[in-house]
Amino acid sequence: MSNIIRHEPHKILCHAVEYGGLVFLAGTVPEDMTQDVKGQTKQVVDEIDRLLAKAGSHKSKILSATIWMADIRDRAQMNEVWSAWVDPQQLPVRACVESKMADARCLVEIMVTAAK
Amino acid sequence: MSNIIRHEPHKILCHAVEYGGLVFLAGTVPEDMTQDVKGQTKQVVDEIDRLLAKAGSHKSKILSATIWMADIRDRAQMNEVWSAWVDPQQLPVRACVESKMADARCLVEIMVTAAK
Amino acid sequence: MSNIIRHEPHKILCHAVEYGGLVFLAGTVPEDMTQDVKGQTKQVVDEIDRLLAKAGSHKSKILSATIWMADIRDRAQMNEVWSAWVDPQQLPVRACVESKMADARCLVEIMVTAAK
Repeated sequence: MSNIIRHEPHKILCHAVEYGGLVFLAGTVPEDMTQDVKGQTKQVVDEIDRLLAKAGSHKSKILSATIWMADIRDRAQMNEVWSAWVDPQQLPVRACVESKMADARCLVEIMVTAAK
Repeated sequence: MSNIIRHEPHKILCHAVEYGGLVFLAGTVPEDMTQDVKGQTKQVVDEIDRLLAKAGSHKSKILSATIWMADIRDRAQMNEVWSAWVDPQQLPVRACVESKMADARCLVEIMVTAAK
Repeated sequence: MSNIIRHEPHKILCHAVEYGGLVFLAGTVPEDMTQDVKGQTKQVVDEIDRLLAKAGSHKSKILSATIWMADIRDRAQMNEVWSAWVDPQQLPVRACVESKMADARCLVEIMVTAAK
């Protein structure tokens, strides 16, 4: 059995976990929540890039993504940033739904599972 | 390491992704959202059947499902269709919660992970 | 390919499924929903401990958790119980969002994926 490798523990969670050829990322939120939904989404995907690199993966290897939005009506704007970011030849499965998040200023949170 | 096989890319996502013995499906929504919750759920599970077959899997191999409903009070009706559909000898784990979805007429969305 | 092992089937779902070195748990809810959020969270993590043990895993091997709360403002209280429970050297990735759940008295539901 492969080992579990945990990255960037922070109080209550890790930001990335590797196991068995898979990389799990935590629900990633923007650092600067004063930005609009496009700005926040850009921050989130930049952070996903950073964490995937750290775990030996890449956006082209994302298998599945779950996106939570504070207001689902912002989906088109989030999708503009998503579409510019994802590898168009290597699209993951995805669900996108509305839920309130821990910080009321947070407009988008993305959780991904990737291959190594 | 096994390859990633991606099925039915559509603009921003794929509808199914295979990797390492696992099959990931996108959050599957009904095509005809004018139907009631039972009709919509039937459409969703039919589509899941179709996608699993395409990826070399089957409903009897579903490991985990996440179900989002526009109104959690519709859960009993959704469960009628779910119960008639799932393999009673091969039940997956499952969570079912309420969230608004991209299309306000969408009453149910289901995301599954299956074994090959 | 490894076998799928399913634990505690109950009408519409199983409470745990093992496959390929992974353990999937259903969205676990408290049994006594008259308790406050801390009491409910304690029940949920106790139940997760029980199910992981049954599937040959352990909280130190949790890879990923998704937490749904009826009221995200209860997050700090839930986190007190979470923090006391998780292995601080083996923290999983995690997302925590607000969604209504099947029973209106249910304040917290947790779904985890673990390694064997």
